[in-house]
Amino acid sequence: MTKPLKIAVAGLGTVGVGVIKELKAHAALIADRCGRSIEVVAVSAQSKTKDRGVALNGYRWFDDAVDMAKADDIDVFVELIGGSEGVARDACTAALQSGKSVVTANKALIAHHGTELARFSEENNVSLCFEAAVAGGIPIIKAIRESLAGNGMTRVYGIMNGTCNYILTTMRETGRAFNDVLADAQKLGYAEADPTFDIEGIDTGHKLAILASVTFGTAVDFDHVTTEGITNVSAEDIAFAEKLGYRIKLLGIARLTPDGMEQRVHPAMVPLEDPIAHVEDVFNAVVVDGDFVDTLMFEGRGAGEKPTASAVVGDLTDIARGLIVPAFSVPVAKLKAPTPAGHDSLRSAYYVRLQVVDQPGVFADVATALKNNKVSMESVLQHGRLPNNTVTLVMTLHDTSEGYVTKALAEIQALDSVLEEPRLIRIERFASLGVTD
Amino acid sequence: MTKPLKIAVAGLGTVGVGVIKELKAHAALIADRCGRSIEVVAVSAQSKTKDRGVALNGYRWFDDAVDMAKADDIDVFVELIGGSEGVARDACTAALQSGKSVVTANKALIAHHGTELARFSEENNVSLCFEAAVAGGIPIIKAIRESLAGNGMTRVYGIMNGTCNYILTTMRETGRAFNDVLADAQKLGYAEADPTFDIEGIDTGHKLAILASVTFGTAVDFDHVTTEGITNVSAEDIAFAEKLGYRIKLLGIARLTPDGMEQRVHPAMVPLEDPIAHVEDVFNAVVVDGDFVDTLMFEGRGAGEKPTASAVVGDLTDIARGLIVPAFSVPVAKLKAPTPAGHDSLRSAYYVRLQVVDQPGVFADVATALKNNKVSMESVLQHGRLPNNTVTLVMTLHDTSEGYVTKALAEIQALDSVLEEPRLIRIERFASLGVTD
Repeated sequence: MTKPLKIAVAGLGTVGVGVIKELKAHAALIADRCGRSIEVVAVSAQSKTKDRGVALNGYRWFDDAVDMAKADDIDVFVELIGGSEGVARDACTAALQSGKSVVTANKALIAHHGTELARFSEENNVSLCFEAAVAGGIPIIKAIRESLAGNGMTRVYGIMNGTCNYILTTMRETGRAFNDVLADAQKLGYAEADPTFDIEGIDTGHKLAILASVTFGTAVDFDHVTTEGITNVSAEDIAFAEKLGYRIKLLGIARLTPDGMEQRVHPAMVPLEDPIAHVEDVFNAVVVDGDFVDTLMFEGRGAGEKPTASAVVGDLTDIARGLIVPAFSVPVAKLKAPTPAGHDSLRSAYYVRLQVVDQPGVFADVATALKNNKVSMESVLQHGRLPNNTVTLVMTLHDTSEGYVTKALAEIQALDSVLEEPRLIRIERFASLGVTD
Repeated sequence: MTKPLKIAVAGLGTVGVGVIKELKAHAALIADRCGRSIEVVAVSAQSKTKDRGVALNGYRWFDDAVDMAKADDIDVFVELIGGSEGVARDACTAALQSGKSVVTANKALIAHHGTELARFSEENNVSLCFEAAVAGGIPIIKAIRESLAGNGMTRVYGIMNGTCNYILTTMRETGRAFNDVLADAQKLGYAEADPTFDIEGIDTGHKLAILASVTFGTAVDFDHVTTEGITNVSAEDIAFAEKLGYRIKLLGIARLTPDGMEQRVHPAMVPLEDPIAHVEDVFNAVVVDGDFVDTLMFEGRGAGEKPTASAVVGDLTDIARGLIVPAFSVPVAKLKAPTPAGHDSLRSAYYVRLQVVDQPGVFADVATALKNNKVSMESVLQHGRLPNNTVTLVMTLHDTSEGYVTKALAEIQALDSVLEEPRLIRIERFASLGVTD
């Protein structure tokens, strides 16, 4: 194992450039740690001439990433192109099928085609690594797949989108509205020009589907991830959350329950005594429970040139050291077919905000609708009358089945005195890290 | 690699029993994940007849752990005996020298003899693993050694003793005194009958020395860890910390500086906005900075039967999967000789508490002593007169060299109006995870 590990990098955006910089900056250190050097031998990107701040001479240039993936003289194909279809998928397939290991940061690709690619990697006895695809620099995939390999695991969740966490943190700190803060985040480069994937929870959903598969040993099942983004979280909700002792976070939550596998992305209120409430700004955190290790939380940077490069290079050093582990913890043939849990079987506590006409009997009507559906109130807060003779009614509901709450809210919305669609946010009191139910 | 991995377990206390339980509970899962089973074939402990709640029939019994370490039919020797010398050391040496991998939870052994044992492991091309020795269930050793193998790292720190963290948390929550809370912790089984190793910071020091070596690629150097425990932390200090916006934690901190390697264990005030301030009760957390990954924090349980077993079994699954990585990140021949940083070169902010006679001019004398030594005050708090005509004076000092502070405090202590030895606690404002200097 003293021959250099030869790698090809496809995609020279921020992460690709970060990988090249890291391998250069720490060439000697990496060689000491791995017992061999890691050498970039080929690169491919859309423009050959663009100035990226790193010298590319000395590397073979490929216009076509698929050609590069098949080249004889490389050991590892590093895919940093992005997108679940097209070149990224074709090139990864070609690389694995021609006996090269693949390292990728592409969450969409793995969320959609991870199981297939894992099978190709096994058939060719090479590695498929995607640490960088989930929570950037945080080494959560490897921790679950290797360090926790002796644990039964039934829950994993986290804050996995820095853009959303930055927006929610800033909204809370400044009291500003969502659209306003989003516009700022775009100016700062924290949100993309088209922010849909981030703010609608799709990016978190991709990561969650991968994480669930690695944690539970189930085939990747992005199709059954339910996603609700943060576009409807109002400054008002954030202020009420604070008053009630919670913070609002966009969470991805996966659980194996007797009813099947839950995979859901949505804003949630978490109590201030939960460490995850203190994961702020662009930081990410992932929490996993093992039946022996109990609860672990990992916090760090979920994006950016250098943290993401760190994850990619971590995968490369594993390959250089000769480590081959099944991509999703167990071989593809052992992956369980996931049974999605029914939406109605979900249980949670809830925050509900209503705009109602300020007249006698409204609260009684609302309470009756809850009672009719076996939903019990934990607390209620009526907020000062607004100029148009309406008031805001905020309730928290005890743990109950989501099916009941949905029906109760439909009845409430049908009341003449209720002026807007009720706003519902789940309250997640995770029994973990010192927080008790 | 389809043959079972055969292991021998020496030491059947809580952790040993936990390992046997975990391997039984998840035998099928582990076999799926590793592509082979992990089988206990032999055990050794002080008493053969003691009821430990697990059946030991079916395992060969050894009265002598060293004999077991040399047995022909085992692949891995699991050392859970404890102690830096004697049987634990002899048996691990014998196991490695007869070509068996060693997995241990023994921090004292690795802190004192880790480099030597790592050399034996390399000479015999086997693994030396000690994930369980540092922060129990938290997979920090593997994360640093493998996931961060592409990073230059110059700082690692954490809360690594659950007993101390439980005592400090309870003191803060209840206002009770150290000795009182310690007695309770002993009743609850959180502190040992002789708590010296925990409360004097020695246990944290062992873990820090190991962590520093893995992080920096330096030979383990426990001899140069400075340790100060929590026995002098008073309920008063904890209350003042709260008032100033800090929490007191027992930290182990290792840094590579231009002056050499710092390794220090001491109580420290950390600002409330630092996530580590929210690591409470028996939980542990380790924070590591890489020049690419930025800051990562890992939080979880640092002790206990099941979390520690999880770490031991994690190491076993690595060995079953064929992974061999240098014990301290680089081969022993590449480990740097550590140069300890001089104590005076340390810079920090400080909290100082004085008991002084309530008479004119005292504060001027104190201020002069600080000025004489180039130490500048950040804030001062004088606390109500006590019955005996004394007052408590609490100051925070700006970042300065510890050498200057030590001299200033010596001058202050020499003042007639100063009644007790000044109490000094370092303030650590780590620039990390959103906290800025």
